Amino acid sequence: MSQLVNDFNSYRSRMNDRIMETANTNIKRFFALDSTSYAEGALPVKTKELLGLVASMVLRCDDCIRYHLEKCHHEGVTHDEMNELFMIANLVGGSIVIPHYRRAVEYWDELNAGKL
Amino acid sequence: MSQLVNDFNSYRSRMNDRIMETANTNIKRFFALDSTSYAEGALPVKTKELLGLVASMVLRCDDCIRYHLEKCHHEGVTHDEMNELFMIANLVGGSIVIPHYRRAVEYWDELNAGKL
Amino acid sequence: MSQLVNDFNSYRSRMNDRIMETANTNIKRFFALDSTSYAEGALPVKTKELLGLVASMVLRCDDCIRYHLEKCHHEGVTHDEMNELFMIANLVGGSIVIPHYRRAVEYWDELNAGKL
Amino acid sequence: MSQLVNDFNSYRSRMNDRIMETANTNIKRFFALDSTSYAEGALPVKTKELLGLVASMVLRCDDCIRYHLEKCHHEGVTHDEMNELFMIANLVGGSIVIPHYRRAVEYWDELNAGKL
Amino acid sequence: MSQLVNDFNSYRSRMNDRIMETANTNIKRFFALDSTSYAEGALPVKTKELLGLVASMVLRCDDCIRYHLEKCHHEGVTHDEMNELFMIANLVGGSIVIPHYRRAVEYWDELNAGKL
Amino acid sequence: MSQLVNDFNSYRSRMNDRIMETANTNIKRFFALDSTSYAEGALPVKTKELLGLVASMVLRCDDCIRYHLEKCHHEGVTHDEMNELFMIANLVGGSIVIPHYRRAVEYWDELNAGKL
Repeated sequence: MSQLVNDFNSYRSRMNDRIMETANTNIKRFFALDSTSYAEGALPVKTKELLGLVASMVLRCDDCIRYHLEKCHHEGVTHDEMNELFMIANLVGGSIVIPHYRRAVEYWDELNAGKL
Repeated sequence: MSQLVNDFNSYRSRMNDRIMETANTNIKRFFALDSTSYAEGALPVKTKELLGLVASMVLRCDDCIRYHLEKCHHEGVTHDEMNELFMIANLVGGSIVIPHYRRAVEYWDELNAGKL
Repeated sequence: MSQLVNDFNSYRSRMNDRIMETANTNIKRFFALDSTSYAEGALPVKTKELLGLVASMVLRCDDCIRYHLEKCHHEGVTHDEMNELFMIANLVGGSIVIPHYRRAVEYWDELNAGKL
Repeated sequence: MSQLVNDFNSYRSRMNDRIMETANTNIKRFFALDSTSYAEGALPVKTKELLGLVASMVLRCDDCIRYHLEKCHHEGVTHDEMNELFMIANLVGGSIVIPHYRRAVEYWDELNAGKL
Repeated sequence: MSQLVNDFNSYRSRMNDRIMETANTNIKRFFALDSTSYAEGALPVKTKELLGLVASMVLRCDDCIRYHLEKCHHEGVTHDEMNELFMIANLVGGSIVIPHYRRAVEYWDELNAGKL
Repeated sequence: MSQLVNDFNSYRSRMNDRIMETANTNIKRFFALDSTSYAEGALPVKTKELLGLVASMVLRCDDCIRYHLEKCHHEGVTHDEMNELFMIANLVGGSIVIPHYRRAVEYWDELNAGKL
């Protein structure tokens, strides 16, 4: 698997473990909500991950973008679908989103290369 | 139809007309992109409107929220689907989104009352 | 009590009631977390309300500011303390915060007038 | 003069007076910096007001936008210049800026009508 | 002392020195305000640093977070107090704050390890 | 030329090429608008680049800042002019901008050293 994807995931895992060791009950509940909110429901997981991704892009959080790109990849989002989401993110968030869009394209490419 | 919905739409229409009278070519192209990006494509219109709505909520723009709520209503988004989107918006954007969520619930109620 | 304070509180109450009628379980849990996070703990309620207020000011949410101003007032925050918080909010958030600071001063005055 | 312009200016004046009565020294220094930073210097006042306006638009603060629109109007900014600034603001900040752009066009029209 | 803490502080120092060489008077005044606003006053230094930290977290600025974490550490903020602040930051700012929270936990650990 | 400037430009170029290979028509139109909006018009290129820079600073996007710094350098913006812009960015955006200002000073120095 790609170095970029690995590095992101291993840092994220390591620090999430540390958070579970040190956090108080409310923080743990907040993290639990963060999982259950993306579970299958009236909206399918795929749609929810697209929502998480577009929100992360307009708020310009690279780590959040990577996380949801990986989930979208897992849900089988196609290139054409992803490009339409990228357009909405750039449009709503503005050209200030473009540097994050560049890094998203790079990460998306890595995820898709890794799939082979 | 509800006063709240009417007031929003008539101000929006009036100022969009004024913009079309006064704006330069680039601004008109930007507005054109704003329409075509939400058109049916690899992603259905309904999904795109959900994306526009969640982006508007985390960026905390009441007028944008109202606009996309109306489009979502038109696309037949159900209460359960809307609540799952509201949860993701509140979660990703934080409690700072709550006042906008309150106004979104009010507007969503008006739209649904108007449907009867 | 002041009209400004009353109007804010009655709209907030009415819509929170409506949310409790319509929201799903996750949203209710999120609202519950929003209450318990400000409860007395290792940090006193007063400090937590100051934290909530400064966060609301730099994120420029008038309703959130009003809510925490009222809590701070209830916790006995003095004018000098409030001015030092206002300064940090203006400094960290920048002059873009000033219009919200103006409205915060107005609301703070109403709260203090109401106390008499 | 227009009601919209009058209302904005009279509230702003009244609350700035109240701030000068109640604020501490640091806040007063911050307000002083807010004036001197827009004074004629290596960059002309007109350019600085354009900078203040575009910053206010991408940060989506209606009151800040109104304030700088009035200054730009006073500095003789033309419609064509203003439209080019509006385009940069919409482009950089994204479609989330559009509702603020609508209100900016309305205010700019009022300022220019008032000039007659 | 930790590499992470050292690297942050040495870059910050070096660039602040360069700023003092090149900046104009207004910028120097702004930096002076940035110091005096956190001085002991009606609110104790510890409370002010907590305010600076929560504001930095909801605005998602890693360098600002590190700076205030170090000050909080110096003021003797305990783990339980810090976790309550982290909760408020995550709650108000939303899950988009989580990647910054991860890095804050890492830095806080480094500061506390360095204390031994 | 400086390593910092080179690295930024080569990553940016490489990913923009990849975007042109993969993007849909709307995204390409959005990128085209991003170019034409900064072209000479009623406002000179230099003023537009200053607008792009100040917007990038208050929105705190390091890559966008670097891009516009380079354009400003090319347009002959002087140190005194740049410092006045930096002041407005720090003032409007607040002390949260300072870490980006530090990196902007470093990049500006590199650009000016490279000019020799």
